[in-house]
This record gives sequence, C-alpha cells and structure tokens, in this order.
Amino acid sequence: MAQLVHKEVEVIEIGTPLNKAVGMLAVSTIRELCPDKLILADIKTPDVGGLEAQLAFDAGADWMTVLGAAPLDTVRLAFEEASARPGKEIFIELTGIRDILARAREWRDIGVERMVYHRGWDEGNLSRSWGQQDLDTIRELIDMGFKIAVAGGLGLDMIPFFKGVDISVFVIGRAIRETPDPAATARQFRAEIDRYWGSASG
Amino acid sequence: MAQLVHKEVEVIEIGTPLNKAVGMLAVSTIRELCPDKLILADIKTPDVGGLEAQLAFDAGADWMTVLGAAPLDTVRLAFEEASARPGKEIFIELTGIRDILARAREWRDIGVERMVYHRGWDEGNLSRSWGQQDLDTIRELIDMGFKIAVAGGLGLDMIPFFKGVDISVFVIGRAIRETPDPAATARQFRAEIDRYWGSASG
Repeated sequence: MAQLVHKEVEVIEIGTPLNKAVGMLAVSTIRELCPDKLILADIKTPDVGGLEAQLAFDAGADWMTVLGAAPLDTVRLAFEEASARPGKEIFIELTGIRDILARAREWRDIGVERMVYHRGWDEGNLSRSWGQQDLDTIRELIDMGFKIAVAGGLGLDMIPFFKGVDISVFVIGRAIRETPDPAATARQFRAEIDRYWGSASG
Repeated sequence: MAQLVHKEVEVIEIGTPLNKAVGMLAVSTIRELCPDKLILADIKTPDVGGLEAQLAFDAGADWMTVLGAAPLDTVRLAFEEASARPGKEIFIELTGIRDILARAREWRDIGVERMVYHRGWDEGNLSRSWGQQDLDTIRELIDMGFKIAVAGGLGLDMIPFFKGVDISVFVIGRAIRETPDPAATARQFRAEIDRYWGSASG
C-alpha cells in the first residue's frame, strides 16, 4: 500500500496492530521503501517512554505517538528522547481519554506540541461518530497551542466537516486503502484538503 | 531469560516494549521454548481489540492485556475473541487509569474477570511507589469479583506487603532478571509467596 500511494501523501502512518504484529520491522521497511517521507509510528506508548521512543526513532520514524493515558513521567521521557534528536517529535494519542482538556495542560507544560485527535477504530465501528463536541474540543486544543492531527473513520465526505479549523494532519486509512485505486483516492483527498486549506498545510 | 527461569515459574510475561520491538515473534518463540507454561502477552491493547487479541492468541498467548484506558467497545471485542477460545483470557491493565473503581464496574459488566494492577515502570523509577491506597483499591477490586495480578517494581521485600490479600499472580521482572542467578531468585520468590499464601495460588 505504501508503494501504491507514497507519491500522493506527505506522511505514512504505521498503525498500532501492524507494529504489534511484526515489531519495528514495519517502520524500518517503510523507511527503506520511502526514504523521503515522514513516518508516523502510531505505537501508542503506555509506559517505558524513553525506550519505546528510542526504538521507534532508531527504526526510522520521524514521529511517534504516546498514549494520552500514559503517566506523565512516560510522556516526559518520550519527549526528552525526541527533543535530543533533530526533527523527531512525539504526538499525544487521545484514544479513550475522557478528560482531554485537563490533561492537555499537563502535556503542554512538558513541552508537547502535537496531538492525534482520534476516534477509535472500535468506537467508530460500533457506537461513536464525529460531532460538534469534537470540533469544539479541537478548537480549544489549537487555542492552547497544539497542532492537531485527526484520525479515525475519515472519508472524503468528512473533510468539509473540519472547514475553518486549522487541522495539521489528516490521517486517512480505510478510506484510501479500501478503494479500487488508492493512489487516485489519495489525490482526491489532497484536492479536497487543498480546496479548504490551500496547499500550504503542515 | 525464559530458558533460565521457566522451571521455577508458572507464567512467562512478554513485556510491552519487547512486543513493540519484534512483534508477535516474541510470543511464538516463547511458546515454542516453553510449551507447557502460561504466556501473558502484555500488549496493552488500546483499540482494535478483536484483531489484537486474535494476533496474541494465534501466536500462542494464553492471556493478553487490554489497556484500561481503551474504549469499552475495545474491551468487549477482545473479551469476545478470548471467550470463543478455550483457556484464553483477557486482563485489564491499569497503567495511567485514575478512576479505577468506576471503570471496574463497566469491565465486570462485560464479563472481564482479571486485571493487572500495575505500578508503571516510569512511575516506579521516577515518582511513585506502592502504598496503603493501592492495597485498599486491590481489596475493593477483589470484593467486586476480580482476580488481581500485581506488577511493577516488586522486589522480594515487597511480597509481605500484600499479606492477607488474595493476590492471583505476582509479575516479577527486574527483581529476577537483574540478579546473578535468576533461577535461584525465582525460587526465593516462590518460597516467599508460598510462605504467605500456601502453594495453591492460581
């Protein structure tokens, strides 16, 4: 899939179950196939933040995710590991967090600048969809100084939903992967994003 | 390490960073080396619960952990995957959860019976130790019907701390691994546990 779509995207995400299945080989293989792309290792680190950040960055990831539910010490250790390496950054991943705004202040105090606002796969399949409350929370997080990536069940029809909100990264999985021509679909997403945000997103 | 200590223990745990590093190969390798031991795959599933449970059980794990912060749908899907396979069970892993008792009721409603009460690695190294509040919470969880495994920074001197509490599994890592004779140390833990709980724990 990376070989099919890499010319159309800026970032390639390694999903959590793929990492669980084959380890950091998933990251190092994509790094070899796509040397000039940003790689987001979505490994949702829950603990042992320094070591897991080291594993991800050593394998070639530019960005890795730390679980929002992780202890603050874990966030701090992963952040320190990233800060010591040029171009490396951590994202807080919000799966399952109920008190986002209260915790967000703690993460900002550590120095974290990025976040994946995520509607979980299981939630998306079974009971939860995007709503006005998500948009309001995202706006508050941006006001606090975060750059927000959005992820989870995003189809082409959902892009205008975020209109007027300064989204930093759209993480699109199934809606590209499960189409007959993933490269063409990725181009459609690119065009739709450019339509609302211009071509200078980042 | 598994080869050194497997005769002295009932359960071998695959830790989260090892799984992140090499994937389910860590589980299948231990399954091959130790065909008659229980394997706990501590993969702290945060989402996509059905698939991650399937990966762990297919690789040979008897038990796997689901993150307490995971959405309830994720817990439910992992639980259903385990329930469909004889002898397979899920543990809720409590890293970073602040409202344990409120959530515990939701997990019991799904049917979950086991839990890892965990003092995180990073917390243990930096700022948190075991205390009376942990014991009180563990007692309440046992009263609710849970079987409790304890994990995190447990040395031989900590075993008596749990005296009188019906702990189901002690997860010991560094305190066995980082000793000159890990097998002898594991035997010492076994003797200390038997001293307080008899030899019929499970």
